[in-house]
Amino acid sequence: MDKENFTIACFSNEYIGDDAAIAGKMVFNKDIFAQNSHFKLGWLSLEEIGYKAMIVNFSDTIVMNAKPKFALLGLSLPKSFTPRQIDELSRGINRACEEFGVKIIGGDTISSSILNISVSVIGELKGRAVLRKNAKFGDLVAFTGKLGGSQKGLNSLLRLAQISKNSRFKKPILRDKFFYKAAHLINSAMDISDGLKTDLGKLLKASKKGAKFTKKLSKFELSSGEEYEVLFTFSPKNLSAIKRIAAKTRTKINIFAKISHKRLRQNARSHHF
Amino acid sequence: MDKENFTIACFSNEYIGDDAAIAGKMVFNKDIFAQNSHFKLGWLSLEEIGYKAMIVNFSDTIVMNAKPKFALLGLSLPKSFTPRQIDELSRGINRACEEFGVKIIGGDTISSSILNISVSVIGELKGRAVLRKNAKFGDLVAFTGKLGGSQKGLNSLLRLAQISKNSRFKKPILRDKFFYKAAHLINSAMDISDGLKTDLGKLLKASKKGAKFTKKLSKFELSSGEEYEVLFTFSPKNLSAIKRIAAKTRTKINIFAKISHKRLRQNARSHHF
Repeated sequence: MDKENFTIACFSNEYIGDDAAIAGKMVFNKDIFAQNSHFKLGWLSLEEIGYKAMIVNFSDTIVMNAKPKFALLGLSLPKSFTPRQIDELSRGINRACEEFGVKIIGGDTISSSILNISVSVIGELKGRAVLRKNAKFGDLVAFTGKLGGSQKGLNSLLRLAQISKNSRFKKPILRDKFFYKAAHLINSAMDISDGLKTDLGKLLKASKKGAKFTKKLSKFELSSGEEYEVLFTFSPKNLSAIKRIAAKTRTKINIFAKISHKRLRQNARSHHF
Repeated sequence: MDKENFTIACFSNEYIGDDAAIAGKMVFNKDIFAQNSHFKLGWLSLEEIGYKAMIVNFSDTIVMNAKPKFALLGLSLPKSFTPRQIDELSRGINRACEEFGVKIIGGDTISSSILNISVSVIGELKGRAVLRKNAKFGDLVAFTGKLGGSQKGLNSLLRLAQISKNSRFKKPILRDKFFYKAAHLINSAMDISDGLKTDLGKLLKASKKGAKFTKKLSKFELSSGEEYEVLFTFSPKNLSAIKRIAAKTRTKINIFAKISHKRLRQNARSHHF
């Protein structure tokens, strides 16, 4: 049994089931970024950990077509952490916040056996919310950028090899510029955090649709998690407009499937090692 | 050096420094409730842990004069947890939410070595926000209910003794009914989470004032943390109106000090065992 899905079912209501919850013009989301679930100490510098903990949360806000505005920070810090280490972690957190214009407005700090960063983001919709559940029959299905780099980085780390500081595993790149401009042309979207195959399964389940692949993707592209590229669907009539926005924002767009009536049966599993 | 204050200083801005942060008509707050920081497994049932994790967060919202509306839940669950245990925890969480009319609108779940519950609450102001920093010269200083029970319960647990399920350590009682009715008569307030002496120090520091005790309080009353009674100050001209609301809502009010000009020097320390 999948404990994450069991837990979610304990709190089921109409707000739950997308990258973020919507209330009026505001959106709210929360993700934990924790040692031994998402990283081992030593794999990333504390500055990189702080940065990534924030970015992966902003990603959820952005793919709703909302601007992240405020964050609440729950820091469980190892007892052994020195002020210098706390300072390094906070530099990464603050760098991410400055890059996306987010203010930290509150939080809590406790001592713990492991580093656990829980982040809540409060965002404001920039227009119509883009949901997972609105994929339409005939939509083209695409993802931004390149997929696979995060898994490759993780594999290297698991082999105790070094990875570049620009590895996607260390430093996700968000597609906010493209997405905000294109959102009015997009029917459904989510970020790719558990792997394209799993996340497409979630989007199709939410939309009660299926998909037919029009392009062969590699195993890495299909399964690599924590990519934070955007998976999205749109009507073919918007293709040239979307291509123009992609060119203008220097965003690679990969069209790989088409939405069909038939519902894809798939068990969406979470990506945690 | 106090690592909590050091950490807070890393993220300092104008929103931080009260029980909750205010943005427009909304207030936001977040507290972590974690094994080995706030409780040992076995001290409280999982249902009691879930309930208390929520209540202590609602408390921060309420003392701002805001109604808790939504919550985001970050659950780090021990790998050994069974569905039955998750269900028990969620029953306590849901019971607290039903009692206060709060909806859980999102969150995240991971496996962890220890139980760590991070809760963010989104509340809506019911009128003017009540802040820590607005204590006025001549204000009477009071707290609701009785203090000391939480420390006594904790001491029993540390001696491996049993405590009643109604012990304040297990089940804080919030003063929302009294506080919402009296808020327009109150100048400053906060909840008592670190102990009356420490929390009064914080309120006076925020208000740049001092206080003169008019009543002798016991060591337990002064130092017991996690009480979640309300510490508040108000003009003597509102005394009879406040007493009427207290009687109507069956809330005990203890006036024990008066706000003075002189600033009390005190190092506010956090209450974690």
